[in-house]
Amino acid sequence: MDSAVVLAIARSEGFGCEALSFDYGQRHRYELDSARRVADSLGARGHTLLPIDMRAIGGSALTDDIEVPKDRSDIGEVIPVTYVPARNTVFLSYALALAEVKGAWDIFIGVNALDYSGYPDCRPEYIEAFERMANMATKASVESDASLRIHSPLAQMRKVDIVRKGAELGVDFALTHSCYDPGAEGRSCGRCDACRLRLKGFDEAGMKDPLSYLA
Amino acid sequence: MDSAVVLAIARSEGFGCEALSFDYGQRHRYELDSARRVADSLGARGHTLLPIDMRAIGGSALTDDIEVPKDRSDIGEVIPVTYVPARNTVFLSYALALAEVKGAWDIFIGVNALDYSGYPDCRPEYIEAFERMANMATKASVESDASLRIHSPLAQMRKVDIVRKGAELGVDFALTHSCYDPGAEGRSCGRCDACRLRLKGFDEAGMKDPLSYLA
Repeated sequence: MDSAVVLAIARSEGFGCEALSFDYGQRHRYELDSARRVADSLGARGHTLLPIDMRAIGGSALTDDIEVPKDRSDIGEVIPVTYVPARNTVFLSYALALAEVKGAWDIFIGVNALDYSGYPDCRPEYIEAFERMANMATKASVESDASLRIHSPLAQMRKVDIVRKGAELGVDFALTHSCYDPGAEGRSCGRCDACRLRLKGFDEAGMKDPLSYLA
Repeated sequence: MDSAVVLAIARSEGFGCEALSFDYGQRHRYELDSARRVADSLGARGHTLLPIDMRAIGGSALTDDIEVPKDRSDIGEVIPVTYVPARNTVFLSYALALAEVKGAWDIFIGVNALDYSGYPDCRPEYIEAFERMANMATKASVESDASLRIHSPLAQMRKVDIVRKGAELGVDFALTHSCYDPGAEGRSCGRCDACRLRLKGFDEAGMKDPLSYLA
């Protein structure tokens, strides 16, 4: 959902967009089909699906045989086992490579620092540090006066604002997917952090989430 | 060769080492077997070989059907087509993830800013920027007072110094491999940037390179 709203924001600002999704061995592989449908529906020029091997590195409930926590009471207080080591750093590194090959200077990412799970690589100071590094990392950055910019338009938005913004920009939420631990046919569990934060956002916006939930 | 000398330096400083190699679709795949032999010979605890898909991103003579330049006269002056977009950023991102999972706070990388091919992601200011970013990126860095350090002990060494240091630390150069465009049985071309910089280093050290060369 967050990525869909980010893409809609980038399109509304006039950017031509290349969507980039990662098959990192996540349990919630259903989100990869969802990403393709969202990219199509919002007019992305292309959609690159990169297989990356986070399982070889391990250390996360999203890629290992560690149970995804449900109904936890400490969302936003402790970093949960769904944290994937250095995930956004790996994702942004590939985005940087793709941007250089495509001649792009703008990378959009849907990290959120308010209604979030407590991941360190979602914080604005992390994004700024990545941007500084990226501007020293590439041939394009050395040979051009242009600067690469990492846009994180959701950083200071609450989930309710993200839902409202998406609705305003015509995002079809029925195409999106958030659950970390979906059941058969991709049905959302309703109890993991991702589901609960999403449902709270819809609830506060006074809107109904079009997805069907198991719980 | 550079990676082998870096591993020998880290071992000589008392570090227990996990070696990390990347299968990024490079032409010079021979270096992956070489890396395993080097890791074994220098007493690495383990060796992780990560398949990563840089070909899906493209844009380099090392991964695409672009000819590897030979005998070029402008080494160190222009960034060559062997540059792989954001390569060291992708490599270091995975190293950061592996370090976090292993509980390590030290990452060693064999970048060199003197006798080098002109890649932007080999410069000390780039490495420092990555280190700053890395210290905001992980759960480990947020939850601990320790700092992650990116060591690049070769940064200010000339190739001749790297050869001498390796010899001093007992690196078996016959196990190493540098060529970007090897021929049958991994024989080195002798004419790409990597071969020429290596041969110059051995020559200036008054030593004989044990590898066999086509040219």
